[in-house]
Amino acid sequence: MSYSKRIEDELKKKGIKIGDRVKVGDVEGLLMPSPEITGNPDFLVIKLDNGYNIGVKFKGKIEKSSTKEPQRIKKEFEYEVEETHAQSIPKCHDLPMISLISAGGTISSKVDYKTGAVYPSFTSRDLFAQVPELSKIVCFKELKTVSEVLSEDMCYEDWIEIAKECAYQINDGAGGVIVAHGTDTMHYTSAALSFMLSGLSKPVVLTGAQRSTDRGSADSAMNLICSAHASISDIAEVGIVMHAETDDSYCFFIRGTKARKMHTTMRNTFRPINDYPIAKIWPDGKVEPLQTYKKRADGKVKADTKYEPNVALVKAYPNSDPTIIDYFVKKGCKGIIIEGTGLGHVPTQNKKYSWIPHVKEAVNSGVFIGIAPQTLYGKLNPDVYANGRILAYEANAVHLKDMLPETAYVKLGWVLGHTKSMKKIKDMMLTNYAGEFKERLQPDMFLY
Amino acid sequence: MSYSKRIEDELKKKGIKIGDRVKVGDVEGLLMPSPEITGNPDFLVIKLDNGYNIGVKFKGKIEKSSTKEPQRIKKEFEYEVEETHAQSIPKCHDLPMISLISAGGTISSKVDYKTGAVYPSFTSRDLFAQVPELSKIVCFKELKTVSEVLSEDMCYEDWIEIAKECAYQINDGAGGVIVAHGTDTMHYTSAALSFMLSGLSKPVVLTGAQRSTDRGSADSAMNLICSAHASISDIAEVGIVMHAETDDSYCFFIRGTKARKMHTTMRNTFRPINDYPIAKIWPDGKVEPLQTYKKRADGKVKADTKYEPNVALVKAYPNSDPTIIDYFVKKGCKGIIIEGTGLGHVPTQNKKYSWIPHVKEAVNSGVFIGIAPQTLYGKLNPDVYANGRILAYEANAVHLKDMLPETAYVKLGWVLGHTKSMKKIKDMMLTNYAGEFKERLQPDMFLY
Repeated sequence: MSYSKRIEDELKKKGIKIGDRVKVGDVEGLLMPSPEITGNPDFLVIKLDNGYNIGVKFKGKIEKSSTKEPQRIKKEFEYEVEETHAQSIPKCHDLPMISLISAGGTISSKVDYKTGAVYPSFTSRDLFAQVPELSKIVCFKELKTVSEVLSEDMCYEDWIEIAKECAYQINDGAGGVIVAHGTDTMHYTSAALSFMLSGLSKPVVLTGAQRSTDRGSADSAMNLICSAHASISDIAEVGIVMHAETDDSYCFFIRGTKARKMHTTMRNTFRPINDYPIAKIWPDGKVEPLQTYKKRADGKVKADTKYEPNVALVKAYPNSDPTIIDYFVKKGCKGIIIEGTGLGHVPTQNKKYSWIPHVKEAVNSGVFIGIAPQTLYGKLNPDVYANGRILAYEANAVHLKDMLPETAYVKLGWVLGHTKSMKKIKDMMLTNYAGEFKERLQPDMFLY
Repeated sequence: MSYSKRIEDELKKKGIKIGDRVKVGDVEGLLMPSPEITGNPDFLVIKLDNGYNIGVKFKGKIEKSSTKEPQRIKKEFEYEVEETHAQSIPKCHDLPMISLISAGGTISSKVDYKTGAVYPSFTSRDLFAQVPELSKIVCFKELKTVSEVLSEDMCYEDWIEIAKECAYQINDGAGGVIVAHGTDTMHYTSAALSFMLSGLSKPVVLTGAQRSTDRGSADSAMNLICSAHASISDIAEVGIVMHAETDDSYCFFIRGTKARKMHTTMRNTFRPINDYPIAKIWPDGKVEPLQTYKKRADGKVKADTKYEPNVALVKAYPNSDPTIIDYFVKKGCKGIIIEGTGLGHVPTQNKKYSWIPHVKEAVNSGVFIGIAPQTLYGKLNPDVYANGRILAYEANAVHLKDMLPETAYVKLGWVLGHTKSMKKIKDMMLTNYAGEFKERLQPDMFLY
């Protein structure tokens, strides 16, 4: 799309070209082309010196700027911002067909330029319209919005809805699925989908953004491009595909049960814990495997979504109050994951703070107690220290090896959705369904 | 110390030298020298092929082994183990005088070779006796045992006792203090000492071991040697000094408020979070600063140990039960740290799971609610997303920037020991007492 005739005429008259430094009222920056698919032709798109793109309604005046050096914008910008709406969705050519599910989050959000705050508001259509490169990689069977919340507000009902939609899309012909999702709890959702998508035979790729998509420094375009490549790869697993490094080099495909958000702001926030990434995904489409994975195949996917949400995740620490276990048991909680210290310990010998009687009583009353590593990295081993042995063999808690606490929590709800037998729960919790356990940890997995 | 005449005679007769591969009954391995200071001269020390050293009582028979290649030991070893006791403690020469406080943990533990489990049992004297190199670096004003528990059993009373002992030792002439401590909760203790040691003018160095000291692969010797160097450095801060890498290259001196145990088993488990290490400490004594720090000075240290233990640390996650806040408030809890998602969020818009009413009510009833990053790395910012603003400005929770959840929890107990005024609590929680906040985070601090 080009700018309106009014704007084009004015640019011609002033000898202004795309990329020139311009002034429009108080706004100064580089003139950008009008967006390919979306965009109001009467709004000028200006890249500010702080890297943000803004849309400024054209009111008849634009000038070449005499300033050569970028300046820091001091004033908060308060200009009208263009409303983007997808005009059309490209039709499929000879490209692989996938589906995109928008589940809210920053990647589908917009900045309110008045307050600076970010709200979820885009739809899948908008998302796609923002990254026209996608149309050269895949064709979209469907762009579906299942949620418009930020991810801290997602709950198991959302996981179920997304899982069902993924299964539906794949069984209906999609060769892969991209799930656009908020980053706050993306690793909880990726774990849930990993367990819920039974017999998965195609890639299910979660992606998101650390900066909202209409900001200049947004990471969403590359994340979506890499996710498109990942969705047509032969990796038939649930994974998170986002920036691997601080610059726009490549993305990681991280197994859904082994991923964790590890930084509040950096774009390479998602890291594999006790695992290698499955692959590096380059924006040019190269897929560089770093380990073995489940391969693309035929076959229907089942959304196995039975879920018991009444489970809890708690942490053991010095002076911690172990009656928290009793509280959850009284509230009808069916299972609890404790983030234990070190190799899987809780306060034990100090009578005032010992968790042992509370864990023992919970287990005796039929509540499953699992232990996961508070350190995040490394494997538990209850046998090294006396306290570990007491927790495992006297109180009958189950040490969950190298499983992430968040993954263990999500898995426990899924397991409890399937059985109430304590023996079966334990068996299922220790069964490797979706790569949640790693047979051999390697030293270089630490802080990968 | 050499072996007993009985053993030496037998070795001579058989032509066996130290380092030879020998067989003693069922035990096969390399013959090690008798320990320098400790050691029973009637026990042979054999290095097994799995790297463990064991002591085997000499019963008259030892032979050269014909096996050339190390073999895997299949059988669990069940031999009598020598009892080590320090025979003497070297006197001070012209070396800097420091104190060593043993607070239990693996570094002061022994393996029970019958069960393979590890128990705390050594004293400071034993510790020192195991690493005779220390006597060339420092002289010990005092070797004091304040605790013999593993660190998961330590509580705030132990922190207070250690803080008081550190202050006493420094005010009584020690140029620095080493605290031998279990690793499970070492970072909680290092945070506590950071806040409790007011006007600290000498190094207070916590160190420990990931493998017990009487095992061949133990990391304690280098950790103690580096800690001795650190204790006589000009770094007048509380810090953790342990392996920086997987091999025995050097240690980090990590600020006590910015350290976290990040791996269950690896010896380089302690990492700086949102900070650089203060320095690299090399076993040869070289101290390589990596950032600014508080310098050694004169002046008395005060143990400011008033502490309110009735505080809690909880985590917000999908489907999490926010009534946990009410529970802690009802139990008389004076402050709660919530590990929030992303930039500092909790479930907000979903009425069924929203934490907002509970946080609001807790704050209104005079309970301080602080938010710390669940990601561990990065800084919080409540202003970017609508949900963050609701938590900060409607529910009046306090976002604690880049402070570690564990540090925030320990600090809150210390702050509440000093004031009950909500305004003062908030001011103190946001005051940088001991490097718990970092002014500028750098990208390369991530996964350091």
